[in-house]
Amino acid sequence: MEIITSTSNSGVKMVKTLLAKARARKQNNCFVAEGSRMVLETPEELLQEIYISQSYLEKIQSDEIGNESNIFGKFQNKIHVVSDGVMKDMSDTQTPQGILAVIRCPEYDMNDLMDASGEKTFLLVLENVQDPGNLGTMFRTAEGAGATGIIMSKDTVDIYNPKTVRSTMGSLYRMPYVIVDNLRDEVEKLKSKGVKFYAAHLRGKDDYDRFDYTGPTGFFIGNEGNGLTDELSHLSDEYVKIPMSGEIESLNAAMAAGILMYEANRQRRI
Amino acid sequence: MEIITSTSNSGVKMVKTLLAKARARKQNNCFVAEGSRMVLETPEELLQEIYISQSYLEKIQSDEIGNESNIFGKFQNKIHVVSDGVMKDMSDTQTPQGILAVIRCPEYDMNDLMDASGEKTFLLVLENVQDPGNLGTMFRTAEGAGATGIIMSKDTVDIYNPKTVRSTMGSLYRMPYVIVDNLRDEVEKLKSKGVKFYAAHLRGKDDYDRFDYTGPTGFFIGNEGNGLTDELSHLSDEYVKIPMSGEIESLNAAMAAGILMYEANRQRRI
Repeated sequence: MEIITSTSNSGVKMVKTLLAKARARKQNNCFVAEGSRMVLETPEELLQEIYISQSYLEKIQSDEIGNESNIFGKFQNKIHVVSDGVMKDMSDTQTPQGILAVIRCPEYDMNDLMDASGEKTFLLVLENVQDPGNLGTMFRTAEGAGATGIIMSKDTVDIYNPKTVRSTMGSLYRMPYVIVDNLRDEVEKLKSKGVKFYAAHLRGKDDYDRFDYTGPTGFFIGNEGNGLTDELSHLSDEYVKIPMSGEIESLNAAMAAGILMYEANRQRRI
Repeated sequence: MEIITSTSNSGVKMVKTLLAKARARKQNNCFVAEGSRMVLETPEELLQEIYISQSYLEKIQSDEIGNESNIFGKFQNKIHVVSDGVMKDMSDTQTPQGILAVIRCPEYDMNDLMDASGEKTFLLVLENVQDPGNLGTMFRTAEGAGATGIIMSKDTVDIYNPKTVRSTMGSLYRMPYVIVDNLRDEVEKLKSKGVKFYAAHLRGKDDYDRFDYTGPTGFFIGNEGNGLTDELSHLSDEYVKIPMSGEIESLNAAMAAGILMYEANRQRRI
């Protein structure tokens, strides 16, 4: 197997561009995921190319990494081997695991985000969330809590940002999502279909656990610094308050989303 | 007022060392907080030195930053002005706000972490948590949920790490905490005083919301990758399960802590 030793190799350059630039990800409709777990969990139809380092190849060959060696069976014709130096140069992480992949962006439409019966639809609606780690954590937590989909405003941080991809811990492949030009239009359509929306808001008077989230439900979560816009908040059916002791003004946005979603999860279990 | 223009100024060098090295923070028993909010919220008796950039000084003088100008009244004799270049060099952030402070580490003993009556004690026990952002978020959320204190194992990431300090959003000053050499000894002492401990654990059979957290309560949260050690888990009164839909194996550690703490908060409200 030929080993790529130059960072001017066109594939290597493409990986670096995709890691660095949201615009390039959009133009090419693909992104990069790093680490054996993320690569191995990639749905086969989305996987375009895999790059592994020479050390990683040696570990596979010496059986050090057990069941990961089955990537050779599964994806053999898509694997490229690069020198350790090239891998370090390509990678977005300080200590690369030695494996990354170029992945086609999945495509969903709004129907994919709905519960099949319509009665258990459970949405997270994100407006201008800016922290990549927060966004990834929200995907992971939404999957855990049983959300059926995530709707993001166009100005939300790129879901394919390398840090976001990492912090989804694979939920990116399993949680349906859409990015919409006009959040208000989508929310109004969903309201007409019976989804009730709740905005975590400082203006909320009643504690979040006083509301019934067992029907079709959506939660609005806003920007980390500025919260929700008035335009979107006004479309919510209720403002809800997460009570806070002490002197803090707000919770971290992902934390607020998680607490609301797990309250819905709790209500749907009992 | 004299303006420091050299990065070899001893005060500037000390700030950089304190930002970079946990060992230096420990030896000097102080840390650095950046940003006007963190600096202004610092309890006066802990505040050692303030550094502001020339631009920040000009903003104060032109009244652009309103009530922040009262730092001059409050802390005048502790303020040093540095050139914008020196501030950029000192700062841990990419776009410095132009103000940072050297702060003495607060000191608590275990009694400070207890509810005065003993009946409402509400502790978070952290074993080898490694992500600075997670640790900071746990402080912030613990304050919001009404926890009375945080106990950290010695191998937990440094609470005075600049990223942790930032992500506490000021809770660092208000949430009592101790770092202990032997977590098990402390937990055993607390158990003998009637605190019940709950471990978020994959071995948990019952959902976390089936337990009663209205009495003296503590939650164990473990390392992000490896969870709790068996030694500590065995000391818990109950293993609790946070139910998870989909295929995720775990939640983010801070998220798990927040969901448990807000369940305790909910039970204590109703």
